[in-house]
Amino acid sequence: MTPLKNDTFLRALLRQPVDYTPIWMMRQAGRYLPEYRATRSRAGCFMDLCQNPELACEVTLQPLDRFPLDAAILFSDILTVPDAMGLGLYFTEGEGPHFERPVRTRDDIRRLGVPDMVADLGYVMKAVALIRRELGGRVPLIGFSGSPWTLATYMVEGGGSKTFARSKAMMFDQPALMHELLALVAAAVTQYLNAQVASGAQALMIFDTWGGSLTPRDYREFSLAYMARILAGLTREAEGLRVPVILFTKGGGQWLEAMAETGCDALGLDWTTDLGDARRRVGGQVALQGNMDPCLLYASPERIQAEVATILASYGPGTGHVFNLGHGIPPDVAPEHAEALVTAVQELSRPYHATTYPGGG
Amino acid sequence: MTPLKNDTFLRALLRQPVDYTPIWMMRQAGRYLPEYRATRSRAGCFMDLCQNPELACEVTLQPLDRFPLDAAILFSDILTVPDAMGLGLYFTEGEGPHFERPVRTRDDIRRLGVPDMVADLGYVMKAVALIRRELGGRVPLIGFSGSPWTLATYMVEGGGSKTFARSKAMMFDQPALMHELLALVAAAVTQYLNAQVASGAQALMIFDTWGGSLTPRDYREFSLAYMARILAGLTREAEGLRVPVILFTKGGGQWLEAMAETGCDALGLDWTTDLGDARRRVGGQVALQGNMDPCLLYASPERIQAEVATILASYGPGTGHVFNLGHGIPPDVAPEHAEALVTAVQELSRPYHATTYPGGG
Repeated sequence: MTPLKNDTFLRALLRQPVDYTPIWMMRQAGRYLPEYRATRSRAGCFMDLCQNPELACEVTLQPLDRFPLDAAILFSDILTVPDAMGLGLYFTEGEGPHFERPVRTRDDIRRLGVPDMVADLGYVMKAVALIRRELGGRVPLIGFSGSPWTLATYMVEGGGSKTFARSKAMMFDQPALMHELLALVAAAVTQYLNAQVASGAQALMIFDTWGGSLTPRDYREFSLAYMARILAGLTREAEGLRVPVILFTKGGGQWLEAMAETGCDALGLDWTTDLGDARRRVGGQVALQGNMDPCLLYASPERIQAEVATILASYGPGTGHVFNLGHGIPPDVAPEHAEALVTAVQELSRPYHATTYPGGG
Repeated sequence: MTPLKNDTFLRALLRQPVDYTPIWMMRQAGRYLPEYRATRSRAGCFMDLCQNPELACEVTLQPLDRFPLDAAILFSDILTVPDAMGLGLYFTEGEGPHFERPVRTRDDIRRLGVPDMVADLGYVMKAVALIRRELGGRVPLIGFSGSPWTLATYMVEGGGSKTFARSKAMMFDQPALMHELLALVAAAVTQYLNAQVASGAQALMIFDTWGGSLTPRDYREFSLAYMARILAGLTREAEGLRVPVILFTKGGGQWLEAMAETGCDALGLDWTTDLGDARRRVGGQVALQGNMDPCLLYASPERIQAEVATILASYGPGTGHVFNLGHGIPPDVAPEHAEALVTAVQELSRPYHATTYPGGG
């Protein structure tokens, strides 16, 4: 493998000195880019795009050709794993993902098995390997998965949900059954992420999009415990380098201490937590990734720059921060605004990493 | 006015001794009750129901005739105020509220004025007075309003929103304009809540449904500051009794200390915050209202009872807690499950208020 030309992202995750604060954007390969929309329309449906390694590679690299981002992230969907378990994933325009065969009963769960990483999910591994080759060492490649709780909500609801009525009813009334499902999904996700590392992923992120819908007690028992189990089973070194793992629970700002104790390398933060407060709470244990409100990208480049300055000042001097949005980039953002963000972070962050930082630290 | 037969709710909000933990449920007059659906179908559209004092009174009292609740809450909608400002509120089935004339420009805002509480919102005041009379002192009546930030999001978006793209763009790029709008809405809400107290409301609640979508900095500047301004302008005594005010920011668990400093009497909590932690943080300053996950009502009565026991134990002995859900009761909950909740709270909470509480306190 070509050696990495830019390892700023990996170094920041491991809290090693860097020259500037690295940045990537959740959903950076996406609908806000005209070149993505062009590839997407060539691909057919959304899943055709995910399942075609060449096209998945193409869209993964598109934002890197536009902006000097410090990491690439595999273009895929969190629901590839339940799909490979036989649930029959399909997307409807404007309504999001659905499963033909949702999981509602003990029998439904007992019929499920851990999918085969080659036969069922080989298309993901091929995409990872291809992207890695095409990157040629420009920046590291991030692999990812949904968290067991997040995947289980889609599997039980049969799609997206506002209230999680069915999945929470199962959790409350049949906790043993929900634990059985979560254990199975956690085993599948562990294999899935390890297979991504074996195929070339250099960092991993677990997206717990819906953990924040739980009480603190339920979060620990039904979401965090399974992410900790995955972390315990992950390959943490490849090609002689540490493979850092980022844990992101949207709405999890109240639980950072518990999240930091799972053994992850970094926590993703949404914008409802002050980054400086988060650093004071867990910055001694983990790196932090985030946390600009994605809606700032609707504002003027000047306003974006001002927000970047505020967030950088809130974190303060030193390493351990990867700049990102607090959630995915919205599809109707102007690419020029994303560019303004990337430029601002890389320019304004340098003083915070200078050995002679005027503010001390 | 008839003296109150049950003042447990008011006493708990003022952190005075009570015999048991009082309970009411957000959206307790609602679609989960067949008698509500019957009245609703007689009324015509949803706004017809809100604007008809007799029918609004009827549905307000329905849950009290079923369950031994400790408070009634005015049946109305948070969008009555912007509607009275001339925005033209209407509801579409399944899609929620819309405004015919959203507020997008400086001219749009300058055209707005504080509505007249008699000419424009007299129907709300008539409903309050009628409900108060029909209650005959059974339990206190809660009046309410949306928070300025929450109302402003609907006014600028022209309806509900997932991302608040337009309202946040205004906030980021034209903060002075957003402040102008928020100041106007805060003035209107202050008059609106005072008029409700003058008509008979005995406690007030401010619903900041969308404050949790903001960064900590933006929350303080664009949501909390205007709720504090309202609190400073409210009549806090009526008929010789304190009129307690409850502040509820959904998703505001990280900001309880700042919220408690506004001068409110109680904070509403959603289920993502541990009630015992919240009490340790701000229980010396304010009462707490909440915080069961509404989805528990999909679970069995036994499971509901177990959750009630956990929440009561988390708060611990002594006054200062009003039991509630962390958000409105879902429309597809079985009324028997709501009854199980009310019964469990009133039965299981008595030991926590006994002068000889075995656990001390």
